[in-house]
Amino acid sequence: MSGSRAVYLQSGGPTAVLNASAQGAIETARRNTLSMYGAFDGLAGLLEGRLCNIDAVSDEAIAQLAFMPGGSFGVSRRMIGSFAEAAEDWWRLRDVLAQHDIHYLLVNGGNGSLGCADRLKDFERHTGYPLQVVGIPKTIDNDLVGTDNSPGYGSSAKFLASAMREVGLDMTSMGRGRVFIMETMGRHTGWLAAACAAAARTPYEAPHLLLLPEVPFDSERFLAAVDDRLARFGQCAIAVAEGITNAEGHFVAEAKKSAIYGHEQLGGAGHWIAQLLLQERGISAHVAQVDYLQRAGGHLGSAMDARQAYIMGERAVEWLLQGKSGVMTGIKRIQDHPYCWDVAEIPLAEVGDQEKRLPPEFISADGFGVTEAFLAYVRPLMEGERIPPFKGGLPDYRPIAWPAV
Amino acid sequence: MSGSRAVYLQSGGPTAVLNASAQGAIETARRNTLSMYGAFDGLAGLLEGRLCNIDAVSDEAIAQLAFMPGGSFGVSRRMIGSFAEAAEDWWRLRDVLAQHDIHYLLVNGGNGSLGCADRLKDFERHTGYPLQVVGIPKTIDNDLVGTDNSPGYGSSAKFLASAMREVGLDMTSMGRGRVFIMETMGRHTGWLAAACAAAARTPYEAPHLLLLPEVPFDSERFLAAVDDRLARFGQCAIAVAEGITNAEGHFVAEAKKSAIYGHEQLGGAGHWIAQLLLQERGISAHVAQVDYLQRAGGHLGSAMDARQAYIMGERAVEWLLQGKSGVMTGIKRIQDHPYCWDVAEIPLAEVGDQEKRLPPEFISADGFGVTEAFLAYVRPLMEGERIPPFKGGLPDYRPIAWPAV
Repeated sequence: MSGSRAVYLQSGGPTAVLNASAQGAIETARRNTLSMYGAFDGLAGLLEGRLCNIDAVSDEAIAQLAFMPGGSFGVSRRMIGSFAEAAEDWWRLRDVLAQHDIHYLLVNGGNGSLGCADRLKDFERHTGYPLQVVGIPKTIDNDLVGTDNSPGYGSSAKFLASAMREVGLDMTSMGRGRVFIMETMGRHTGWLAAACAAAARTPYEAPHLLLLPEVPFDSERFLAAVDDRLARFGQCAIAVAEGITNAEGHFVAEAKKSAIYGHEQLGGAGHWIAQLLLQERGISAHVAQVDYLQRAGGHLGSAMDARQAYIMGERAVEWLLQGKSGVMTGIKRIQDHPYCWDVAEIPLAEVGDQEKRLPPEFISADGFGVTEAFLAYVRPLMEGERIPPFKGGLPDYRPIAWPAV
Repeated sequence: MSGSRAVYLQSGGPTAVLNASAQGAIETARRNTLSMYGAFDGLAGLLEGRLCNIDAVSDEAIAQLAFMPGGSFGVSRRMIGSFAEAAEDWWRLRDVLAQHDIHYLLVNGGNGSLGCADRLKDFERHTGYPLQVVGIPKTIDNDLVGTDNSPGYGSSAKFLASAMREVGLDMTSMGRGRVFIMETMGRHTGWLAAACAAAARTPYEAPHLLLLPEVPFDSERFLAAVDDRLARFGQCAIAVAEGITNAEGHFVAEAKKSAIYGHEQLGGAGHWIAQLLLQERGISAHVAQVDYLQRAGGHLGSAMDARQAYIMGERAVEWLLQGKSGVMTGIKRIQDHPYCWDVAEIPLAEVGDQEKRLPPEFISADGFGVTEAFLAYVRPLMEGERIPPFKGGLPDYRPIAWPAV
C-alpha cells in the first residue's frame, strides 16, 4: 500500500512512557517517508474524524515526546465492538479512513483497546477496505498477556519502589511502632504493589507486607501479620493494591462498608486497611494514596522502560511496512541477569481482553510478599534513570499542539 | 571551651535534606578537629544519654548523608520545658553532658525544638554548667520565623510542583470534565499547597485551584470556583493543604463529619473535598494523598535546598567555635532574580514556638491562588536537581549504623 498513510492512536490510561512509543512510531515513519496522522482522543476521535497531521510537526518537537508523561494525543476508553455488534461504527470508520487514504492503523493501548484492534484486523473482509492493524502495548498494570512485560510498568514500578525505600528511611527515623500504608493502582492485579518489594534489601527494610489482589484478603491473618512485623522489625510498611478482594471476590473497600463500619467509604483500600488497624489494634497508620503520581512520574522514568516503549513503536511501523497485520509488538525475555530481551510478535487474538495476574511462583508462601523469582523479573525493568530536561527547578515538558487536519 | 565536645540532634518530622545539614555540621567539626557526638532520637535520646560517636564514622559514610532522606540519627517530638517547669529534665541533661564533656549543643529542628533550644541557652545560669546552644532550621512546612525559608521546604515544593505538572499532563490526556485533588501536608500553613502553583506556566495548566489554611474554606465559594474552572479550562486540578479550616477555625475534615455526612472521616481534607464535590455536583474526583512521599523524596531533591541545608549546619558549628550561643542559622534573601542570599543570625528567642503563615501579599485576591510575588519567592528554592546515586534502578541510600557511645 505504498503512498498510503498511517494513523496512530493512544487508548486507555496514560503512562510515563506512552509518548515514547509515539516517538518511536513517528520517527520510524519519517525515516521511511510514511505519512502519519494521529487520532485525537483514541478511538473516540478516530470515529469522529478528529485527526491531526503529525507530518507537520518538527523533529525537535517529536524528540521531546521521549520525556513527556500523559498521552499527548489524548486518550479515551471508547471501544469498537465486533462487526456484528457495531457495524455502524465500522462503516463510519471506513469513511474516515477512506477520506484520508489511511490503510495502516496503530493502536497503542491496553487489553481493551488491543481487543478492538484484534477485531479490526478483519476490516477488509467485512468492509472491503484494506487496512493493516498493528498493536503497541501500553499499561502500568503489566497485565497484558503474550508480552513478558508492558511498557509503562517499569517506570511506575521504579517510582513506587523508590518512594517506598524513601518512606522507609523516614519511618525508621521516627522510631518504633509506626505503620505506613501505600495504596497503589492495580484493580485486578498486584504487579504494581509487588514492585514495591524491590525497595527492601533486608527484611528490616520497607515494605514489610504486601496486599495483592491475587491473594484473598483475610482480616485475621492480616492483623496477625502486622503484629508479627511490628514485633520483629519495630515497624510495618504496607503496599496495598487498590483492588484487594475478600474470599468472596468482592473489593474489600466496597464490600464491608456497611457490614462493618456502617458508612460510606471515602478513601480506597488503603484507608479501609487503616480503619481496620485503628479499630482492631488501636494503631493510627499513615496512608499515602499515590494515585496518578505513579503513572505520570516522568521526572524519574526507567531508562529500560522508555527504551522498550520506543522500540515497541518503532517495530510496529516497520511491521506495517512489511505487510504485517493482526499482531502486537511485545517483549520476550531471554534471561534475567544480565537482562537480555528481544522483540516478540504476538497475535492480537491472544492479547485482547485478556488479563495476566501475578503467577503463583511470584507470590511468597504466606501471600504477603514476593519470591526471589519475582524480584529477578522486576529489577531489570526499573533499570537506568531517564531524567527529563529541567527548567526553573521543574521538568520542562513542552506539550505539543498537534495541528488538526 | 577548647577540648570540649559537641552533640548534634535532629528533632521533629524529617525532610529530604535534614541529613545534609548533619553533613554540613559534621564535616565542619572535622575540619576544626571538634569532637562530635550525635543523640539518638532527638531530645528523648539526649536526656536518656543514648549517644553515638560520630567521630568513629568514615568520611565516605558522612558524605552519603548529602542524599539521604529521613533523619539518620532518629528524631522524636520530646521537648524540654523551662527550668521552672522541668528542672528534673535539666539536671538529667546536665549529668549526660558532663559525663561526656559536652559543652556545645546543636539542635536541628522546627519551631518546637528551637523553642527548647531557646530555653536551654540559659543552661549555665540555671545549672552552673557551661553550654552553648545553636539552632539549625528544618521543616518542610516553611513556617519558621526569622529565616526567609526553611531547609526542607524547597525539596518538598519541587516534588509537589513536579507531580502537579505531571498529573496535569495526564489529566489533559483524558479529556474534559476531570477533577483531581492533591492533598499536601500543612496543618496550619499553606506553603506546600501554594508551591504547587509553580507547576502552571499558563492559567490552563494544573493547578487551577489552591485551598490554603490561611483562607477560611467556604463550600459555596469553592463549588462556584470549581464550576468556573471547569467551564474555562475543561478541568480542575486542586492542591489542598491538609489543614484547611472553616470560618470558625475548625479543620474541615473533622468539623463537618457528623454535621454533614454523619460518619467518621477516613481520608483527610482531600477526601472530604471529593465527597463534597460528589454530593453537591455529582463529580467523581480522583484524590492523591501524598503523605510522607513529599518529605522523603530524595530521588529528586532541590540542589538549592540541599546547599542551604548544608551551609546552615556548617555555619552553626563555626558559630559555636566563635563562642556564639542562643542563635539559629537562617537565610536572608538579598534578591529574587537572580536569586541571591546570605546566612542570617537569628536569635532563638524570635523563632521558638512561633509560626509563619503565608502573608496576604502572597495570596491572590480570590483566595484560590497565589500572587506573582509568591512565585518569585518560591522558584529559586526549587532550583537545581540533586539526584542521588542509583543502583539496580533505585536510589542507593546507605543508612549509617552510628556506633553507640
